[in-house]
Amino acid sequence: MADAPEQPPADGAALARGWLENSPFVAHLGITLESMDPDRARMRLPFTDALPTMGDVIHGGAISSLIDTAAAAAAWSGADVPERPKASTVGFTVNFLAPARAQDVTADARVIRRGAVSVIAVDVTGDDGTEVATALVTYRL
Amino acid sequence: MADAPEQPPADGAALARGWLENSPFVAHLGITLESMDPDRARMRLPFTDALPTMGDVIHGGAISSLIDTAAAAAAWSGADVPERPKASTVGFTVNFLAPARAQDVTADARVIRRGAVSVIAVDVTGDDGTEVATALVTYRL
Amino acid sequence: MADAPEQPPADGAALARGWLENSPFVAHLGITLESMDPDRARMRLPFTDALPTMGDVIHGGAISSLIDTAAAAAAWSGADVPERPKASTVGFTVNFLAPARAQDVTADARVIRRGAVSVIAVDVTGDDGTEVATALVTYRL
Amino acid sequence: MADAPEQPPADGAALARGWLENSPFVAHLGITLESMDPDRARMRLPFTDALPTMGDVIHGGAISSLIDTAAAAAAWSGADVPERPKASTVGFTVNFLAPARAQDVTADARVIRRGAVSVIAVDVTGDDGTEVATALVTYRL
Repeated sequence: MADAPEQPPADGAALARGWLENSPFVAHLGITLESMDPDRARMRLPFTDALPTMGDVIHGGAISSLIDTAAAAAAWSGADVPERPKASTVGFTVNFLAPARAQDVTADARVIRRGAVSVIAVDVTGDDGTEVATALVTYRL
Repeated sequence: MADAPEQPPADGAALARGWLENSPFVAHLGITLESMDPDRARMRLPFTDALPTMGDVIHGGAISSLIDTAAAAAAWSGADVPERPKASTVGFTVNFLAPARAQDVTADARVIRRGAVSVIAVDVTGDDGTEVATALVTYRL
Repeated sequence: MADAPEQPPADGAALARGWLENSPFVAHLGITLESMDPDRARMRLPFTDALPTMGDVIHGGAISSLIDTAAAAAAWSGADVPERPKASTVGFTVNFLAPARAQDVTADARVIRRGAVSVIAVDVTGDDGTEVATALVTYRL
Repeated sequence: MADAPEQPPADGAALARGWLENSPFVAHLGITLESMDPDRARMRLPFTDALPTMGDVIHGGAISSLIDTAAAAAAWSGADVPERPKASTVGFTVNFLAPARAQDVTADARVIRRGAVSVIAVDVTGDDGTEVATALVTYRL
């Protein structure tokens, strides 16, 4: 759920990069951008001792935060920047497939419908190949 | 998404309290328990400078983390503790209704179906009364 | 998922009534309107031998059809009619709570957020009081 | 949402075929099985005049019914049959991507997690290649 900056940058990808570099919560979780292409973004949540819900299993909320962030980046990456950008996550559904234990996880977000409301599919995978979660995100630019 | 401790406590509410007091991610976000009753839990996410996605708007991932945590607490609060507790969020859907700006938010989680898979409805409200988000969570005890 | 008619009626409730009276699929399932108020609609799915998935249990798809229809009616009931109405369900999430056996079911749909994308909560109840399903629907007018 | 027959057949695929051939609602919509493999099922909803919500656009409820049915078939297709089969859809999320107009649609359902609760991804495509809907279904065998 991202509000837009006051001075819109040249394109959606630049806007997304500016947001990611300055977002306090993105920094608080340590989420980093791996790559961005039109309609696609890959982001990483490096494992730290702050992330487990218990033991060494990453909290579902941390994974959901990665999903929401990657989906927003993917939505912006292929978009024009309106004069008065105003964007937000309409909502999302996540299904957890397996615990992510003591490892980095990566979210791969792909825009599967672009429109007044965009739909983004996100898959989260652990560094050991574990399929951790899958999600559908709806986002409004 | 919570794994269970090795030595199950007397009842589900005690188990949930033990988890909440020891969960690293719950502490990292500063989430606190307001109240717990059978099939119900209320939890608070106090506003801090670490939570915004941008400006003073709390990141949707932080709100989702509160939702997932409150739903798990509600699911446990009215449950028996099995010999070998093993629980996890199956998944959840959240819809964001309005931005939460520079204020604490509270999640009210109510179990609306208890079974092999429990269903928990969660409403998130800001301290100024703003309806921030609503969610349906499926949880397996 | 409803397209709008070519000649918009006086208000959203009239538009919804016109749609419900003429929709082939609504007739095919036998769905009827119980009541409509601003931001709210109640609709009934009378039990017939065509509805079970097996035995006397109504198919989840029939219940989902009732949910989608009631949500659209609720969204329109409190809305202005734009010059060129064009509406559709963005998506929905349904959780099934208990089987509906050999009885009518009623959907109560309430708009909980009105905006460019509206959010509608829908509860489905059997005539014997069984809580059958709950859903969150996002709809764009 | 399918209850199981009293005499379980040899395997899950046989159980699913028996259900599909005898389900009143599946017949009422005219849904047919295209193919079934372990963890996968493809089903078709042939266009008829009974399916539109309005004009020639298939009602979202009809598409949701196809999704729910295909997901159940995929879940059973790769499963063992327990002594006392008892299965049901926990819930599902569908996002509509584009209207399906006056054409058959096909659902491709793939089990992406198999367990006490299985997760099935379903994509719905029109005969002209239109991507109509995508869904995540949770199903309990």
